[in-house]
Amino acid sequence: MKPLKVALLGCGVVGTQVIRLMHEQAGDLAARIGAPLELAGVAVRRLGRKRDVEVGPELLTTDAEALVTRDDVDIVIEVIGGIEPARSLIVAALSGGKSVVTANKALLAEDGASLYEAARQGNGDLYFEASVAGAIPLLRPLRESLAGDHVKRVLGIVNGTTNYILDKMDTTGASFTDALEEAQTLGYAEADPTADVEGFDAAAKAAILAGLAYHSRVTAAEVHREGITEITATDVASAKDMGYVIKLLAICARSDDGRSFGVRVHPAMIPRSHPLAGVREAYNAVFVEAESAGQLMFYGKGAGGAPTASAVLGDLVAVARNRLAGTRGPDESTYADLAVHPMGETVTRCHVALDVADKPGVLARVAELFAKHDVSIQTVRQEGHGDDAQLVIVTHRATDAALSATMEGLRELDIVRAVASVMRVEGDD
Amino acid sequence: MKPLKVALLGCGVVGTQVIRLMHEQAGDLAARIGAPLELAGVAVRRLGRKRDVEVGPELLTTDAEALVTRDDVDIVIEVIGGIEPARSLIVAALSGGKSVVTANKALLAEDGASLYEAARQGNGDLYFEASVAGAIPLLRPLRESLAGDHVKRVLGIVNGTTNYILDKMDTTGASFTDALEEAQTLGYAEADPTADVEGFDAAAKAAILAGLAYHSRVTAAEVHREGITEITATDVASAKDMGYVIKLLAICARSDDGRSFGVRVHPAMIPRSHPLAGVREAYNAVFVEAESAGQLMFYGKGAGGAPTASAVLGDLVAVARNRLAGTRGPDESTYADLAVHPMGETVTRCHVALDVADKPGVLARVAELFAKHDVSIQTVRQEGHGDDAQLVIVTHRATDAALSATMEGLRELDIVRAVASVMRVEGDD
Repeated sequence: MKPLKVALLGCGVVGTQVIRLMHEQAGDLAARIGAPLELAGVAVRRLGRKRDVEVGPELLTTDAEALVTRDDVDIVIEVIGGIEPARSLIVAALSGGKSVVTANKALLAEDGASLYEAARQGNGDLYFEASVAGAIPLLRPLRESLAGDHVKRVLGIVNGTTNYILDKMDTTGASFTDALEEAQTLGYAEADPTADVEGFDAAAKAAILAGLAYHSRVTAAEVHREGITEITATDVASAKDMGYVIKLLAICARSDDGRSFGVRVHPAMIPRSHPLAGVREAYNAVFVEAESAGQLMFYGKGAGGAPTASAVLGDLVAVARNRLAGTRGPDESTYADLAVHPMGETVTRCHVALDVADKPGVLARVAELFAKHDVSIQTVRQEGHGDDAQLVIVTHRATDAALSATMEGLRELDIVRAVASVMRVEGDD
Repeated sequence: MKPLKVALLGCGVVGTQVIRLMHEQAGDLAARIGAPLELAGVAVRRLGRKRDVEVGPELLTTDAEALVTRDDVDIVIEVIGGIEPARSLIVAALSGGKSVVTANKALLAEDGASLYEAARQGNGDLYFEASVAGAIPLLRPLRESLAGDHVKRVLGIVNGTTNYILDKMDTTGASFTDALEEAQTLGYAEADPTADVEGFDAAAKAAILAGLAYHSRVTAAEVHREGITEITATDVASAKDMGYVIKLLAICARSDDGRSFGVRVHPAMIPRSHPLAGVREAYNAVFVEAESAGQLMFYGKGAGGAPTASAVLGDLVAVARNRLAGTRGPDESTYADLAVHPMGETVTRCHVALDVADKPGVLARVAELFAKHDVSIQTVRQEGHGDDAQLVIVTHRATDAALSATMEGLRELDIVRAVASVMRVEGDD
């Protein structure tokens, strides 16, 4: 049987694992596909660099453009990351009739439409399981297994770095800065951690998830995004006290009328009894609520060379089989074309801690302000007394706009010395 | 666009939900497939019976054989269950070129080979996501997402009835009989609970999982099976005491040399820190360990009309798309053709509680017996003293044959009054 030729773009942490596995599992891959795979070339930035895997020097090239348009190449794997040159290379490959497997969440969330368009033109496949939650089979279940269901909500821990940091803060009482430093020492966080701790990475993944869940086009720019840099050890401790844990969540939620949906990334308190609460260290997990299927959860490693390579190879087998069968996998599905509603329309709940003077009438004035904004209070607890009194309030569900306006109002109340912390509450309704 | 015609075999709990969803979501399904679906007929046992869903009386028939061979039918959904007439009907449908979606674990585990053979003959699809763990997307991830990886082990809670019973025993201290009775009252267990509590249902699912995980043919008869009827409140309490919980597990595990694998269903103690330990009530979850992907877990509802129908509809969309594209989904994959090794060769660990006389030399004689069978002891704890002394021993990993021989020997030792409980320990290596 004639081999299928594979071009690899990028030979970093993931690329080297892809090469190793293609080599070590050549027999299994050939049996599962129905034809052998052959590595046709590897595009790298520098030829001479030492690599953790053996690659014949004749396979290495710095000319990625030439590689992706070579006539004999059937499939292109892109693990360079970033917008350019990845976009141009993928579009060139797809337009030229190749199938593409990519792990590039940033590109898919910025301009997935162009990639799909190129795939349709060239009649090839665009697969990207590795782009969200690494090794966890998640996109295929969303795209295919749940194709006969309606997704109501997705709650995901999709960034391992921030989960590691928040987990450390929760278990050891560390500050954000100390936990970040430890994550950097252990290689879980990069020297410049912005993409992770400010939620950019999670926002790209949220956009991809929302697009698949709601059969609509979503870009990262439409995702409401808040990071975890402002979270203090006190926030974490007080959440713990109340039986909650703070996680950075990517949330996609359909509106009650089903006509729009919200997409957001922000830290939130979730009950310790929620399945996502037990997701420790750098693990990822995605909780899906569908109309008929009910609650589902997918758990596993969200990053790392071998886990990401596992997802890439799963896609590689799928697109290779499709090529042999002369068919294509699922295309972009945007028929529902639902609108992304603004963050203000999102319905959520809030936990807020207020430093107040302990004198008669304080609670009445605070409660009045909540009522004015139509925000109903679920629980209120006063801690301490005298000069150090703190009111801890958890609201019922309300729009984020009403909740924000309430917080704004609280900051202006003379009897409120400070709004010590505000955190959304998710996963207990 | 010409509609794809669907014949439904069975109109019970799952069938009625399939009809409801096909009707309610007709627009979405048509958009996702690229053509509308049309219900061509529903085979039932009795025509006059009252049903929870509206079906045009002209669609109902008692002649299932005629329905599955009708020229205008494209896809057959089988939710009758059991071996016959399900097998004959599915084989007839597939041989006649239809695609089939089934939830029939018993049939797949007894004679999946005949079904696949008929699918190849007729050039149609055989999909069965709903057969294992209901709504949880599990088979598609195993068959496709992990197609580029090697599965080392699968540990699954795949029977909701027994998980409900064991969970009740764990949380309330109830006896097996009382917990079973409650499960029956709530509709989680059938009047004759044999298939669930004796592990037959889980064994069929284990056979399907092992076949997919190891690319080999496995039947239910090859699965080592033990049920949960012998588990006492004392077993559960003593597991709890040691930080463990008892679950009925379906376990597929590759041997260290990769040349064979074991498939078994039995109750086992797992550490409370294991992700499967938190799976409560009638939920299902499957924990997969793969070489590159690492640890993955899939969690959700394992049974029920709507959840099972969600899985059936996901498959329905897939086979419908394949028919429109003139292609087939993944075929049976048995190229690896690994042997199922006997239970005796399975490597596991054991927790054993012995009633002994508390006199000098007892521990030495017990330890000697373990050593004789080459079973090494990890921890030993003596509880009580005088006439009521109990030795609680947890072994290191050993073959099940060596462990069984040790237990046999213990029963024959004069200083051992009784072997109070024996339970395998899983999930902590």
